[in-house]
Amino acid sequence: MLQDQTILRIPGPSPIPPSVQRAMNQSMIGHRGKETSDMLKKIAPGLKKVFGTTQEVAIIAGSGTAGLETAVVNVVKPGEEVLVVVTGAFGDRFTKICEAFNIKVHVLNVEWGKALNPEEIKAFLAGHPEIKVVFSTYCETSTGVLNPIDKLALAVQEVSDALIVVDGVSCVAGVETKMDEWGIDVMVTGSQKAFMLPAGLTFVAASEKAWKVIEENDQPRFYLSLKKYRDNLLKDTTPFTPALSLLFGLEQVLSLLEAEGLNNVYSRHALMKDMTRAAFKALGIPLLTSDEDASPTVTAVQPEDFDAEEFRKILKKEFAISIAGGQQHLTGKIFRIGHMGYCSPADQLQIISAIEVALKKLGKNIELGKGTAAAQQVYLAQ
Amino acid sequence: MLQDQTILRIPGPSPIPPSVQRAMNQSMIGHRGKETSDMLKKIAPGLKKVFGTTQEVAIIAGSGTAGLETAVVNVVKPGEEVLVVVTGAFGDRFTKICEAFNIKVHVLNVEWGKALNPEEIKAFLAGHPEIKVVFSTYCETSTGVLNPIDKLALAVQEVSDALIVVDGVSCVAGVETKMDEWGIDVMVTGSQKAFMLPAGLTFVAASEKAWKVIEENDQPRFYLSLKKYRDNLLKDTTPFTPALSLLFGLEQVLSLLEAEGLNNVYSRHALMKDMTRAAFKALGIPLLTSDEDASPTVTAVQPEDFDAEEFRKILKKEFAISIAGGQQHLTGKIFRIGHMGYCSPADQLQIISAIEVALKKLGKNIELGKGTAAAQQVYLAQ
Repeated sequence: MLQDQTILRIPGPSPIPPSVQRAMNQSMIGHRGKETSDMLKKIAPGLKKVFGTTQEVAIIAGSGTAGLETAVVNVVKPGEEVLVVVTGAFGDRFTKICEAFNIKVHVLNVEWGKALNPEEIKAFLAGHPEIKVVFSTYCETSTGVLNPIDKLALAVQEVSDALIVVDGVSCVAGVETKMDEWGIDVMVTGSQKAFMLPAGLTFVAASEKAWKVIEENDQPRFYLSLKKYRDNLLKDTTPFTPALSLLFGLEQVLSLLEAEGLNNVYSRHALMKDMTRAAFKALGIPLLTSDEDASPTVTAVQPEDFDAEEFRKILKKEFAISIAGGQQHLTGKIFRIGHMGYCSPADQLQIISAIEVALKKLGKNIELGKGTAAAQQVYLAQ
Repeated sequence: MLQDQTILRIPGPSPIPPSVQRAMNQSMIGHRGKETSDMLKKIAPGLKKVFGTTQEVAIIAGSGTAGLETAVVNVVKPGEEVLVVVTGAFGDRFTKICEAFNIKVHVLNVEWGKALNPEEIKAFLAGHPEIKVVFSTYCETSTGVLNPIDKLALAVQEVSDALIVVDGVSCVAGVETKMDEWGIDVMVTGSQKAFMLPAGLTFVAASEKAWKVIEENDQPRFYLSLKKYRDNLLKDTTPFTPALSLLFGLEQVLSLLEAEGLNNVYSRHALMKDMTRAAFKALGIPLLTSDEDASPTVTAVQPEDFDAEEFRKILKKEFAISIAGGQQHLTGKIFRIGHMGYCSPADQLQIISAIEVALKKLGKNIELGKGTAAAQQVYLAQ
């Protein structure tokens, strides 16, 4: 087998574009010098566009979980009650962080594979006026669901003053995100998904409404104090040592997104989703999510008559293709294909045609080329 | 369209494996120091294996043409007559080099798209005992033909003492090469094809029989003196400044080839050829070469009812896929797909499924998925 090839189609980390890899290979520079300030100045407007906000977007050296914790410790005051909407494994992360800080958590569980229902949350909040913050997930990586956070925000605002905090880790930069317009109060994402970078950076932005809470919040925090990041960013610097090579990469990522055009980036992701879904439908293999709930960045497939783990092994052994399995109670029951960031319709054609071969190898009776043809048709119909 | 993606499927340069790219990124070292000697010591046996020879394989900083010229100026004595077997654009290169050195060239032209016929060459040599060297091409890149150089050598040896010089630029390291066993006297190749490196190195080995000629040849030469390279190689060094970063890369390439196993490397190339050919046959699009003459490293396709250049433009515009056009009188009439070096069956599935889309975009009435299915079947049948 060809050595040194990994076709990475897990839902993050995602592949790194070569120009980003090169950018990250630059020699280190002083992070308190003019060059770093100039770089931060160039990065800021691009990040704001991706977030759909005029607020500063904090760049924190840390993984996505550091970003989620930043949201919690900055907007929740000790003793307050919050609602966590759990649609899968990652929604649960907010609960664990809140509990570590002795915050009283109400959990609203949604069946895995389904999107949250804004009306249900609205009804819950109407009965719980003490809830100060609603935590939810934009794309639930573990199920491939894209939650309607725009509708969620509308619904929440109708009955409550609660802040709306969104984990956008596995989709922001791959799907439209209009933080200000939709009324999202805190948006968090990470570098290793649609941002086409290695893990190691988390980005956090807060609304004016959230800033009022943050500024008078006496919850102890230091490294994850959002105010420190914002105040330093306004002076084109960072409160702590920045992860420089990732910043070099981020600058290049933003110029790639700008060159493609954000709307084209989003259409490309939607197209890859549609191609993938059409292929599995044509092959008669059930998808975990409905068309309406499906995320443009990751597709979860729920086979009925073969073992997902066995299938993944074949795909890896034959083609060096890495896709993800299921998490928690979905382990062995689903597989997940990432199609985010540095990933094209040609890459989806590759995955789909290789998947057909792997299905045959597994002994499944499919018609070769049928899934590929369905994906091709979707491409041609755009 | 996704920025910064180029799916390079021209018949060289070919894509570089990431670990080779990383190896080439190493800092420069002194080329007269122990580290470089150690590296040359590690490289030598791997190169010999690829060439199928116990002779030293010279590593010359230069492109493939420098290697071809090395062959000419070392084994042909001024005033001698040679035969050049021309099966396409690259066979012609030998003629031009010989003519630049005032060597009398007999040319045996073979129809483009067909392999040379050893019997024909044997007959020619029988009538021309004055010919001292026969030049031929292993893989003719311009037509995708793999010439039967083993049979050629046998045929030549039956009637002549002429040296057999082979241009192996676009296939050595992708197809079996047994220089010693077959009786090839000089084998030349370059770094940018199946060797998975950028252009910039050419490799040349000579047989014992050739060395006798080389040593008593008074044709003026300095940079391309093969003896200088061999004598220095025997002391683990180079006569002139080596292209160090390419040597770093070469060391890694050889360890990748070793890890895969040379026979597996050759089977992979043969499989990619068979997948590609099956796809075009299924789609009813004619191939330029016969199954018997086809090279495992490049496939030439000769469409009857659409323009090859128009088709290439669509493939590039839609999918950032680069394939090659035809050369000289085949310009616009054929297109060529490289499948050599860092290229896998999964990559062939990608190209084929993308090609189907491009054909539809061009207005050709094909059944989507049919070529892909044919390639998938070939993969499954191995």
